[in-house]
Amino acid sequence: MSTRPPGFAPLPDPPYYAVIFASLPGASDEGYGAMAEQMAALAAEQPGYIGMESARDATGFGLTVSYWADEAALIAWKAVAKHQLAQQLGKDRWYRHYALRVAKVERQYDGPEGR
Amino acid sequence: MSTRPPGFAPLPDPPYYAVIFASLPGASDEGYGAMAEQMAALAAEQPGYIGMESARDATGFGLTVSYWADEAALIAWKAVAKHQLAQQLGKDRWYRHYALRVAKVERQYDGPEGR
Repeated sequence: MSTRPPGFAPLPDPPYYAVIFASLPGASDEGYGAMAEQMAALAAEQPGYIGMESARDATGFGLTVSYWADEAALIAWKAVAKHQLAQQLGKDRWYRHYALRVAKVERQYDGPEGR
Repeated sequence: MSTRPPGFAPLPDPPYYAVIFASLPGASDEGYGAMAEQMAALAAEQPGYIGMESARDATGFGLTVSYWADEAALIAWKAVAKHQLAQQLGKDRWYRHYALRVAKVERQYDGPEGR
């Protein structure tokens, strides 16, 4: 396994869970950046949190994948009160559209080798 | 289900597969853009291809998630000759680091409702 640069989540032995969140912001992003930072910090404190990978391109389309040890961990995170508020604000204010998929990671690899 | 804007992949009934590819380019991106476009077009022609979502941020870190009907479809795509060449060039030339996870999508939702 090669060295993992910043931005990449750890690779624990599968199986574990990935939450794939695709989003497109709407007209207003007021408060969004601060809330996103808070949520990232709060998620990192949850039991079973593995890591997060995120990218948003120039058009605004964004992908965030968070990784969790098991289903119980991601269900608990979904239910955290501050996170529920953020989810509601996302629906009401921030997102023009989003799609969320819960997936079980079965295998993985990284590279390039030896760098 | 709300209307799906460009950039979002379809949401067929689970289960299906997601290939989560995180990457960070290296010093040279010569030929990368053209190859990425070719691979996206070629993937879309494969049996079992569902769709792709992709974002790369200003730091260069990128996430691409491709969706496949079943494992056979993604294994067949991995073995396509032109794609194998692209994978090799990615390892040899383009990527400073990458991580690839194969995951089975178990459930999903999108929103916001009614927009």
